Amino acid sequence: MSKRVFGVDIGGTTVKMGFFSSEGDLLDKWEIPTRTENNGANILPDIAGSIRKKMDSEGLTENDIVGIGISCPGPVDDKGVVHKCVNLGWGNFNVGDEMRKNIDLPVFAGNDANAAALGEVWKGGGSGRENVVVVTLGTGVGGGIIINGKVLSGSQGSGGEIGHIHINDNEDEKCGCGNYGCLEQYASATGIVRLAGRKLASDSRPSALRDKTLTAKEVFDLAKDGDVLANEIVEEFGEVLGKGLANVAGVVNPELIVIGGGVSKAGQIVIDVVKKNYVKYVFHGSRGSEFALATLGNDAGIYGSAKLVIDGVKRA
Amino acid sequence: MSKRVFGVDIGGTTVKMGFFSSEGDLLDKWEIPTRTENNGANILPDIAGSIRKKMDSEGLTENDIVGIGISCPGPVDDKGVVHKCVNLGWGNFNVGDEMRKNIDLPVFAGNDANAAALGEVWKGGGSGRENVVVVTLGTGVGGGIIINGKVLSGSQGSGGEIGHIHINDNEDEKCGCGNYGCLEQYASATGIVRLAGRKLASDSRPSALRDKTLTAKEVFDLAKDGDVLANEIVEEFGEVLGKGLANVAGVVNPELIVIGGGVSKAGQIVIDVVKKNYVKYVFHGSRGSEFALATLGNDAGIYGSAKLVIDGVKRA
Repeated sequence: MSKRVFGVDIGGTTVKMGFFSSEGDLLDKWEIPTRTENNGANILPDIAGSIRKKMDSEGLTENDIVGIGISCPGPVDDKGVVHKCVNLGWGNFNVGDEMRKNIDLPVFAGNDANAAALGEVWKGGGSGRENVVVVTLGTGVGGGIIINGKVLSGSQGSGGEIGHIHINDNEDEKCGCGNYGCLEQYASATGIVRLAGRKLASDSRPSALRDKTLTAKEVFDLAKDGDVLANEIVEEFGEVLGKGLANVAGVVNPELIVIGGGVSKAGQIVIDVVKKNYVKYVFHGSRGSEFALATLGNDAGIYGSAKLVIDGVKRA
Repeated sequence: MSKRVFGVDIGGTTVKMGFFSSEGDLLDKWEIPTRTENNGANILPDIAGSIRKKMDSEGLTENDIVGIGISCPGPVDDKGVVHKCVNLGWGNFNVGDEMRKNIDLPVFAGNDANAAALGEVWKGGGSGRENVVVVTLGTGVGGGIIINGKVLSGSQGSGGEIGHIHINDNEDEKCGCGNYGCLEQYASATGIVRLAGRKLASDSRPSALRDKTLTAKEVFDLAKDGDVLANEIVEEFGEVLGKGLANVAGVVNPELIVIGGGVSKAGQIVIDVVKKNYVKYVFHGSRGSEFALATLGNDAGIYGSAKLVIDGVKRA
């Protein structure tokens, strides 16, 4: 039997747990609640307990396990030190050191968006590529940059935070980060609803959107059905995201850009509208970058966390 | 005697040649003309001849030389393949393979802006740091990104091309790259002169700039003397460059940003005005990035080319 790897993805409400072969086959997955009370003091012990239970039920000892990968919803530097996870109540500490108080196994920690990117490049939409930008369009906009197959964590774990690059000088609503005019304000699911609301308020033409509860999915569905205003909103989204990704590509010159998150479920229309605008703005040296949709969905984080272990053990 | 390293920086009119100890001490430097006729077919043979001459005069054989580092004014990928150097007349080929037709030594090639960045991080303004953005403000705006001490070349050698990230949606003059509103159009020496020309044409207030031949140096000199319009031009420059660097930092989260090139000779005023705007736009995770001036001047390229050899040999 090959050794086993645990890939753990900590979210604000649930912790996703993945049990992998060391070749990266997902053998089992489950979730446990994220207990954020007491500044999240129970989270790592709960994870350790769940891993211990799985090991017992499979009849495994520490010798059968390569290690545990853990992705966290906040900046994590290359030494595995987390720099505040507001959603978990966590301050600054070394995740591996804390985790090993509960279970004696090698631990490798990373940021959740970066781990998801690594997962997509390992086993998903970016499989087989070395230099990839992954952008995740969910409630917010997350990003992960993979250079020569490795996550670009940055000096303090804030590498790939492309949701907060500045896009618009004329924005008067504040972004969640405190700035004005961030990519996330237009390209996230929430941002698309915001664009739609503004459009409907400022434009008197008819649209089926006026009879619906505004969601990003509704905007894309109606755009595919030919609704004129919905298509203009999609264009606006594509212009902003294409421009933002062009600037990211000017910095890292990726061979591939992978688009994931809930918004990407709209499919090819997202790639088409983003790529059209991307080539308009990007430096010619990156005009050939390809685009693909993410394929791992909510499992990207556990895959990427498992890969952190496999890469980390190889390096050590 | 320690072994020797050659660091070569190919420019459009001259080739800068550096002769280093393997510890990185610059022992001698000189220049030879860049012969661009015949699609630049003589450039590499000329370099090989000049190296051979130096070896002979120092009584050195191939065994005494670690290798030759060569930086080129165009994209060079991680395999040492140059993807067109318009200024030299070069197409696509492997620089090492070509060079070894003339001299049998290990060759490591890179892009000139990236090599200059590596030089600054090795022996200049970024010395001792691992994650650094270097921006060079000359006739154009060049950039180099150092991640964990290594150049980020990108998938086709266009990593760090930050002079062409999109900054302004309302620009009607075309950038040299063919796009509109690139960082280079405002933050290069040429860009600052353009900003100054526009300012003087649209504003009737008095300024000593009106009696001068407009240069970036004149703008900064008069700004330091308290000239109101010159200071407003410097502010505009700082706003654009601060915003651009904030977006770069959102992607790579550097610990340090080094500003070099002719414009940086204006000194601390450049850092002050750029940093003030940088912190206004940057994602909070990168707000703590430090700023420094480049210190190697025109030697940054030969230093970086020498470092390509030292790192390359270590990896091989």
